[in-house]
Amino acid sequence: MNVRGQHFRTIWPKAGDERVVQLIDQRFLPHRFVVEDVTTAAEMATAIRDMHVRGAGLIGAAAGYGMYLAVVKGTDLAAAAELLKAMRPTAVNLAWAVDRQIRALSQAVTPEEKILIARTTATEIADEDAEHCRLIGLHGLELIQQIAARKQGRRVNVLTHCNAGWLAFVDHGSATAPIYAAHDEGLAVHVWVDETRPRNQGSKLTAWELGEHGVAHTIIADNTGGHLMQRGEVDLVIVGTDRTTYTGDVANKIGTYLKALAAKDNDVPFYVALPSSSFDWTMRDGLAEIPIEERGAEEVKHADGWADGREVEVRVTPESSAAANYGFDVTPRRLVTGLITERGICEANEESILALFPERVVGRRGDTPVAGLQSCA
Amino acid sequence: MNVRGQHFRTIWPKAGDERVVQLIDQRFLPHRFVVEDVTTAAEMATAIRDMHVRGAGLIGAAAGYGMYLAVVKGTDLAAAAELLKAMRPTAVNLAWAVDRQIRALSQAVTPEEKILIARTTATEIADEDAEHCRLIGLHGLELIQQIAARKQGRRVNVLTHCNAGWLAFVDHGSATAPIYAAHDEGLAVHVWVDETRPRNQGSKLTAWELGEHGVAHTIIADNTGGHLMQRGEVDLVIVGTDRTTYTGDVANKIGTYLKALAAKDNDVPFYVALPSSSFDWTMRDGLAEIPIEERGAEEVKHADGWADGREVEVRVTPESSAAANYGFDVTPRRLVTGLITERGICEANEESILALFPERVVGRRGDTPVAGLQSCA
Repeated sequence: MNVRGQHFRTIWPKAGDERVVQLIDQRFLPHRFVVEDVTTAAEMATAIRDMHVRGAGLIGAAAGYGMYLAVVKGTDLAAAAELLKAMRPTAVNLAWAVDRQIRALSQAVTPEEKILIARTTATEIADEDAEHCRLIGLHGLELIQQIAARKQGRRVNVLTHCNAGWLAFVDHGSATAPIYAAHDEGLAVHVWVDETRPRNQGSKLTAWELGEHGVAHTIIADNTGGHLMQRGEVDLVIVGTDRTTYTGDVANKIGTYLKALAAKDNDVPFYVALPSSSFDWTMRDGLAEIPIEERGAEEVKHADGWADGREVEVRVTPESSAAANYGFDVTPRRLVTGLITERGICEANEESILALFPERVVGRRGDTPVAGLQSCA
Repeated sequence: MNVRGQHFRTIWPKAGDERVVQLIDQRFLPHRFVVEDVTTAAEMATAIRDMHVRGAGLIGAAAGYGMYLAVVKGTDLAAAAELLKAMRPTAVNLAWAVDRQIRALSQAVTPEEKILIARTTATEIADEDAEHCRLIGLHGLELIQQIAARKQGRRVNVLTHCNAGWLAFVDHGSATAPIYAAHDEGLAVHVWVDETRPRNQGSKLTAWELGEHGVAHTIIADNTGGHLMQRGEVDLVIVGTDRTTYTGDVANKIGTYLKALAAKDNDVPFYVALPSSSFDWTMRDGLAEIPIEERGAEEVKHADGWADGREVEVRVTPESSAAANYGFDVTPRRLVTGLITERGICEANEESILALFPERVVGRRGDTPVAGLQSCA
């Protein structure tokens, strides 16, 4: 999507120098827009580990480009693969992208062939991610068009939580894709952006990317969505997901469940946007089976932002108080109106999901285990 | 309650110098414990306006002491009354305390009588507030004892939102009173403290006062309570209220409604603790009738805390993004298990509330209008 009026992806081969990959170093957003040059697999591993890039789709693309850089530099491929995979062990797309490169490269003989195949494969991984998100946008656009028609020109208010935006993928995003599609179609769409404590992915990343693309938005404290729904100020909720069971239970950033409850209580449609790679075809009961990552207390005890012309981290609690930091919660399928995928929209239940992905009727019988929960940040 | 092992109220006449009133200047908590000497009604007005003191009960007590200082200094009483009332126009207890002083002083003749009556009245206002909170604690204690008995010694986990602690009153607090009572009885009680963005009254004030009194507590992001309830980690929710209708609808800090929804969804008892002065005997429908204050966007766009040995405010959003800041939401009575008052516990409905306050059966027919919503911060 656009940054300062110019189209960007989150990661791309450098124009004029194919031995370099460039990416947006997201650690400095929204305060500074920094583009990083990455020239080796080891540098890409660092960028993944230290969260210069984050989000399931983007991590996969970064891994694909990391393997490409290993080929360009003549690095040992097995070592590069091992290094990259170790950076975010629970990120499913990371291992998947590395293995896809290894498989593709096994067919190459000459160094020139290897470089060509690695570049082609990295490009395919990135393009597929962007294309899946674009299709999610087209399907979700229909929901927004229906609401816009009903509201007769008054703006459509969408609430989202965390960042399931283009910064978490290669382009378009998942939850944001229908919003960008609607905006680019000229519909009046406005987004309520949940701050998303403790890491503030909403106020830092989602607000930034919406603002740069020119989408009207308002940041709110995570406490606010229920009140807005009670007052009729939310027409639609769209969130992303880190893992959704084939039965429709949705693991996403902590706090999603609270917004789903409020949506249900106020008859606001609650949609989850996801590329099919975020389905877990082995898990039946999200609440019982999905492990929830517990992160460090320091994220809750601190907030970081901009003061006196620089990034500053402040402690917002008593020094001696304990804090707990659960990364995700699980929204039960009964609270989910529908799932927006690259193939279309389905209901959040086994029958409807498998009708859209019929090839998975076999697949879910144990042959596609998904490792731990991957984080959108 | 205790600070560094010593009992404090939030406001008190200075020992050895009755012409001075002392109060905890809450602007510096939790980072610095500052006691302020207040010697004139004008200084007390500033302390109220600039939120050195906040919370319904404490604002009332501060107004009572402010009028006392006016008498001590020989200030024009009508002018002092007008000044004090103007500081937080929507704080019901403020006008109520000033008027109580004016009425009491109308019976005094000599300057000595005036000082005696003003001091007695200020003390009565403060003592009544503390006593009502103490009684709320005794009634709420029974709820915690019942849960403790059922859990056979395992700690009782209470979740609270915002600060309805002793810092918002003269002592004990409302939502915290049952917790302090249980702790002082030797029960194993642990509190999940909602951070309460955007002003962080939970992570700043509630965490501080619980910690100083020695109560086990853990600060969580506002997003977290639903997940904890799903996992059985919350036995009881107790919150305060800024205004509760005589039919049981509860206005409280924004985000309370979301926790009430999660409590209902997980069969967790959800109680509201309030002195009867927080009932609005004129309003029947909280959602339709209670006005919700919209505060400045800057609170959402910033967080303030401690860094490099001083208070620092950081911007946590893009500079150009809009933000909205609703101060309160309304939790409908259907989500409230019960109300804990100084007279006992009742259900959140008209019949049960009026059974506890039978003298109000007449009162609610229009003679006790309550002005705007008073803020707990």
